[in-house]
Amino acid sequence: MSMLLEFSMYPLGQGESVGEYVARSLDIIDRSGVPYRLNPMGTVLEGEWDEVMDVVRQCLDRMTQDCGRVSCTLKFDWRRDATGRLTSKVASVEQRLGRELKK
Amino acid sequence: MSMLLEFSMYPLGQGESVGEYVARSLDIIDRSGVPYRLNPMGTVLEGEWDEVMDVVRQCLDRMTQDCGRVSCTLKFDWRRDATGRLTSKVASVEQRLGRELKK
Amino acid sequence: MSMLLEFSMYPLGQGESVGEYVARSLDIIDRSGVPYRLNPMGTVLEGEWDEVMDVVRQCLDRMTQDCGRVSCTLKFDWRRDATGRLTSKVASVEQRLGRELKK
Amino acid sequence: MSMLLEFSMYPLGQGESVGEYVARSLDIIDRSGVPYRLNPMGTVLEGEWDEVMDVVRQCLDRMTQDCGRVSCTLKFDWRRDATGRLTSKVASVEQRLGRELKK
Repeated sequence: MSMLLEFSMYPLGQGESVGEYVARSLDIIDRSGVPYRLNPMGTVLEGEWDEVMDVVRQCLDRMTQDCGRVSCTLKFDWRRDATGRLTSKVASVEQRLGRELKK
Repeated sequence: MSMLLEFSMYPLGQGESVGEYVARSLDIIDRSGVPYRLNPMGTVLEGEWDEVMDVVRQCLDRMTQDCGRVSCTLKFDWRRDATGRLTSKVASVEQRLGRELKK
Repeated sequence: MSMLLEFSMYPLGQGESVGEYVARSLDIIDRSGVPYRLNPMGTVLEGEWDEVMDVVRQCLDRMTQDCGRVSCTLKFDWRRDATGRLTSKVASVEQRLGRELKK
Repeated sequence: MSMLLEFSMYPLGQGESVGEYVARSLDIIDRSGVPYRLNPMGTVLEGEWDEVMDVVRQCLDRMTQDCGRVSCTLKFDWRRDATGRLTSKVASVEQRLGRELKK
């Protein structure tokens, strides 16, 4: 599991509040079994390319069923032989600073 | 405080591990007094444009002191009269789904 | 002029077609005097932090006059003593490959 | 062809200048047959999910052959039944403003 991928996906043209659509995506993510963490601006998944991209694809397929336009930003950090970074990256920063940070 | 801004900044040309530089930024962010949350792929700040951009600017100024090239991604969500979204956006998704999610 | 900054800004809640709002931003950008290039997914500005961020700020101020929610992605590449990269980065890739690419 | 996808991929730990790696990606993109446009901060592809993601995947596979860490940002705009947006989005903004913009 060497990839961390953060993404944020929402429809255009469904009004200003898109929480209903975000919740549907989180339901797909949470049930997928792929390790993840939700934050106020996106969701971070950890896994191989096929695993994480399949989850993004499922979220898109669901959203395009009833939305005519979908916008999505993604960002990934691939590192050879790296695992468990969903928790270790934040822990490593805290260790360097010698204090707890807000998560 | 109507803006949520997530950003991630790191140097190019300082090797594969950039944790030292990320820790310096988090030190600036944590001491700034601006509400924030750290996640494995970035840091989310909440505040007015001037407040949050001043923090990003300070992180950049520090990094350019000893790095020749700096890459940064940012994403913001501005909403009129919205506050406390650092915690309320995630809580709202959980409420819709009727269960806790991984944060 | 050591920073290249790409950004894309649009309103949520103003329907599926947001071309009118994008055009208003491009009008601000084009009149600002800051060097830029428009592409299908965003606009790339070149300049110092204050110059480019002032343009982004003006676009946001205009959009928030009649939009309740605004989403924006930004990405910058800062490099010491680098100028003219609005054209030189693409030219350098073409030179390495020894052929013209689609711009 | 209803998706526009912009992406930018580069290695960490290969020094400050990554033009060689970017050129290899552009070679893959240019030979793929998928419509694209290169700009100073990324490359925009147009096509279906499978087509465009396959190109990104090929670029990643090539880069991970000799790089230990790879960073990538992506952004897509999916729109039902929309085609030819690689050129029409920019043209539409120019038409609204009644003047040519810098591309």
